[in-house]
Amino acid sequence: MDIQSTVADLNLITNIAQCGPDATIAEVRELLQGSKIGSIVITERKKVKGIFTERDYLMKIAGHETKKQGLLVSEFMTQNPKSVDLDTKITDVLELMIQGRFRHVVVNDKKGELAGVVSIRDLMEFLQATINDLEKSLKDLAACIV
Amino acid sequence: MDIQSTVADLNLITNIAQCGPDATIAEVRELLQGSKIGSIVITERKKVKGIFTERDYLMKIAGHETKKQGLLVSEFMTQNPKSVDLDTKITDVLELMIQGRFRHVVVNDKKGELAGVVSIRDLMEFLQATINDLEKSLKDLAACIV
Repeated sequence: MDIQSTVADLNLITNIAQCGPDATIAEVRELLQGSKIGSIVITERKKVKGIFTERDYLMKIAGHETKKQGLLVSEFMTQNPKSVDLDTKITDVLELMIQGRFRHVVVNDKKGELAGVVSIRDLMEFLQATINDLEKSLKDLAACIV
Repeated sequence: MDIQSTVADLNLITNIAQCGPDATIAEVRELLQGSKIGSIVITERKKVKGIFTERDYLMKIAGHETKKQGLLVSEFMTQNPKSVDLDTKITDVLELMIQGRFRHVVVNDKKGELAGVVSIRDLMEFLQATINDLEKSLKDLAACIV
């Protein structure tokens, strides 16, 4: 892992929670609760159509739950979320997440099909490792000079 | 900002959304939705008693909303969440967040009263700046050697 690493170098979760756009809010909620996860990718024929997160539940469903449980997730998801490729540099993913205030970014393969999701947590672990490596290199180099 | 920086060097949000332990779930939900934020700190006489996040809403309230809207947040919050001090090193906060899988960490001042909250996003921005600085130092040092 270093500053040149790409998304392909991350330990991507490929077993991604997903459902079709015609899943109901109740179905999505049960899936998120059952798997103890905070987001689900909405796909159709392996192509990403949207993403629905715990934030969406709180902001768009909470307070109107009874009325909205039978409605389709496609109405409430973020449509066509920003995505990256396996060869996107991790530093560019970081930039995208900070600028866009995203906590999850979808990863597509060369066919444009869902390959995984990068979470803000994956990035943190990468960054921690990178900083440790960079610090070590700096110390080694500084030792060379002295 | 460098690897020795402490929490005090972060641009901490000090205007923190908070409420007492006897706020109802409906009140907390309205506060989160109204402020478009994902977490609220539960305080009593300026001391932190708990934290309640959008994840708690999804996992503990969603699906039973009507029944739970009038219940107290103290029943559903994470009690006595991990906290750090203003002089905790940011790298230690990072470690805590990764190990504990936290997205928010409470910061206390010397009197043990709430001083702010560090979010995973604050940390990302710090890490990005640190990596850029470290990379630049490395290049400068390498140039000295050549």
